[in-house]
Amino acid sequence: MAQKPSIPKGTRDFSPTEVAKRNYIFSTIRQVFETFGFQPIETPSFENYGTLMGKYGEEGDRLIFKILNSGDYLKKVDENLLANKESNKITPKISEKALRYDLTVPFARYVVQHQNEIEFPFKRYQMQPVWRADRPQKGRFREFYQCDADVVGSKGLWQEIEFVQLYDEVFSKLKLRGTTIKLNNRKILAGIAEIIGAKDKLIDFTVALDKLDKIGAEGVTNEMISKGISEAAIEKVQPLFSFNGSNQEKLDQLQALLAESEEGLQGVKELRFVVDHIEVLGLQSAKLALDVTLARGLNYYTGAIYEVSAPEGVSMGSIGGGGRYDDLTGIFGLKDVSGVGISFGLDRIYLVLEELNLFDAVELPKPNVLFINFGDAEAAFCMKALAQLRKAGIKSELYPESAKMKKQLNYANRREIPFVVLVGADEVKNNNYTLKNMQTGEQQACSLEELLKITTKL
Amino acid sequence: MAQKPSIPKGTRDFSPTEVAKRNYIFSTIRQVFETFGFQPIETPSFENYGTLMGKYGEEGDRLIFKILNSGDYLKKVDENLLANKESNKITPKISEKALRYDLTVPFARYVVQHQNEIEFPFKRYQMQPVWRADRPQKGRFREFYQCDADVVGSKGLWQEIEFVQLYDEVFSKLKLRGTTIKLNNRKILAGIAEIIGAKDKLIDFTVALDKLDKIGAEGVTNEMISKGISEAAIEKVQPLFSFNGSNQEKLDQLQALLAESEEGLQGVKELRFVVDHIEVLGLQSAKLALDVTLARGLNYYTGAIYEVSAPEGVSMGSIGGGGRYDDLTGIFGLKDVSGVGISFGLDRIYLVLEELNLFDAVELPKPNVLFINFGDAEAAFCMKALAQLRKAGIKSELYPESAKMKKQLNYANRREIPFVVLVGADEVKNNNYTLKNMQTGEQQACSLEELLKITTKL
Repeated sequence: MAQKPSIPKGTRDFSPTEVAKRNYIFSTIRQVFETFGFQPIETPSFENYGTLMGKYGEEGDRLIFKILNSGDYLKKVDENLLANKESNKITPKISEKALRYDLTVPFARYVVQHQNEIEFPFKRYQMQPVWRADRPQKGRFREFYQCDADVVGSKGLWQEIEFVQLYDEVFSKLKLRGTTIKLNNRKILAGIAEIIGAKDKLIDFTVALDKLDKIGAEGVTNEMISKGISEAAIEKVQPLFSFNGSNQEKLDQLQALLAESEEGLQGVKELRFVVDHIEVLGLQSAKLALDVTLARGLNYYTGAIYEVSAPEGVSMGSIGGGGRYDDLTGIFGLKDVSGVGISFGLDRIYLVLEELNLFDAVELPKPNVLFINFGDAEAAFCMKALAQLRKAGIKSELYPESAKMKKQLNYANRREIPFVVLVGADEVKNNNYTLKNMQTGEQQACSLEELLKITTKL
Repeated sequence: MAQKPSIPKGTRDFSPTEVAKRNYIFSTIRQVFETFGFQPIETPSFENYGTLMGKYGEEGDRLIFKILNSGDYLKKVDENLLANKESNKITPKISEKALRYDLTVPFARYVVQHQNEIEFPFKRYQMQPVWRADRPQKGRFREFYQCDADVVGSKGLWQEIEFVQLYDEVFSKLKLRGTTIKLNNRKILAGIAEIIGAKDKLIDFTVALDKLDKIGAEGVTNEMISKGISEAAIEKVQPLFSFNGSNQEKLDQLQALLAESEEGLQGVKELRFVVDHIEVLGLQSAKLALDVTLARGLNYYTGAIYEVSAPEGVSMGSIGGGGRYDDLTGIFGLKDVSGVGISFGLDRIYLVLEELNLFDAVELPKPNVLFINFGDAEAAFCMKALAQLRKAGIKSELYPESAKMKKQLNYANRREIPFVVLVGADEVKNNNYTLKNMQTGEQQACSLEELLKITTKL
């Protein structure tokens, strides 16, 4: 009985061409990570249930894929829970493992578990899939890759500069010009909260302020008031409503605005450190832009906050992000380990490069040479040449059976194989090869040596 | 509240060194796959429940990791099933997805689903993790990688020869000398079954025969009798009890033994085709050995059967295997697509290479150069040189803060970084760098140009 094959919602198959394009992005990122001194680690696809649950908020807990225990998993579950169908309470009793939701929590777990083998500051990168039971949409999948680089064990701000350079280097290598690296600092946000006298309103405040472009100062003010932020508070941070100009000008405005907040001023100082040095060192293709509305992972980051947006005109959410977290490993019992890291969203970067036709550089996975199969005697003769070509690293293959010549040539054409080799009884007798250039149609008789020379990577 | 961190049974973290070693194996296999004309695909980590279940036998079904549905998954489950705690019957109602158990079934699903985009014969490779809820032991994990190459859409035997060459090429490149590629053919087994007149006893027969080395002819005969195989049948296949000599001698023995079985003789012919051509073409480091007790995946393979064993003296199960299956895609509704494929067991190959100290060639992931951080002014000066080094592809880093020099040098030593660059006030003034070779202890003043020249990959 035939089943109609399909794959789960939000997941994807990748064709050879897609794999090649994805690997091009992976290897670009990997190479830059390593050039910057980062080392790879890998962690298991699933972690213990307790390692992941409670680390991403209520919404995150809901979106984590749980793995059902093996065997008679219901045996020890309380009858009353089952009778009442209390799914939420039953889950931890029938599931001990869950699929990785991001790379940061497993990394924190790794650092604590292996702290005695690690040399701090520890610069690690990790490129692995993560899974979220989210509603799929453009650029959002249930299985997708994150590519993270983090440094733990140092509070030094130089690393924050290096991450700006690292983003710039990767996107420049990918020829993706015009990305914007948005930068903020949690201490700026804390300073603003101090000034408006309402720490609990900070998210409402930044969400509203972020809409300035769309709904104007009046709209933003109204939204803030509706959220319970006082007019006096809004008045105090009025400069944020006309917050523009160069990064230096923005820093000056912030310095004035946050004059009363020690933490806020510390944030300005840290941002200035990054901005000043990047101005001196320069960037290749990205733009660094201060953005006080940037608040991603507010409960998580304690210093720098990064987010990268695609070039203007490409509609895509952020293609990268990160920040500093001063006590991530604390949840696993290791205190006072400061970390800072960034992440690349592989799948979104792929979509952006595709939209902008930036995959020209990618070598598609196909052979350079196909040996046509005219029968066993001829094939046996071809196999000797094939071994030599492969030894020389030339991707090549023999058609696996002596099908009609037209069928074999069609196969070569459709796979866009540039050369075919024709060996019939004459060639075997003369110990030579007829090489056909599939683009020009030209044919020539040649020795094995000539064959090797011509078909060596174009 | 601190949790003591750990990972699920049968899974592993990989340190930078381990990742580098694993990637060395992956990239060796990938390169050979591509040289042989195979193209990569990838499939999702989880498939629909129905895609996987029922494809691997009862034992397989039990070992498949199932993913719990999201939300209130118990809502629609029958109350009586819950009251009786019928785990097995409830599973398909609370789980719609399951983790990939191997790469073959997802590949069959892929071929059927994408049949209109694929050019046949389709030569694909796939290197991805699979998951099994098996009891962990040496060389057996719950998360491990398979590296598969398959050709579908051709019955040609040349591909069976190429797979022997491919195994040999990969293991030779890995410097793993002395592997044995064991070869059998399902048709030989079918022929033996015909001769002993008991198709249903074939597995008992091969299992018993496989013990010949350990328990001798008498022991094997006794075991066969205890399994219900008649003495007359055992008498008929007596030559298998002294089945040795060269592959050619074995083929001659089989030919005589299976003279009455048409299918058996077809198997001899197919094996002979492979053996004869491999003898002419030669192998670099592996040995090809006919093995009539080889019966892996008996219900699955229809022609050639392969299994690779590690060199003698290394105790490890098979490090690879595969075979021909004439109708794999039939389960998904596409009939008459013949395929043949092989698999490499990455994790076991890793253990073998480790045991034999064959990882010398692996470049460990560490920077070539560390810039010591003496303070912000000096670090700023270093950052300019750092950018040049990285542009030249030299892995390098700045210590992220101006810690004590001894701490920074210890860091360099422990990470085995070959060069450190010392920049103090003098160097900034003179616009030069002091380069220290950490192996010899030698120090020298040098220009940026000289620095680049010396630190370029050793």
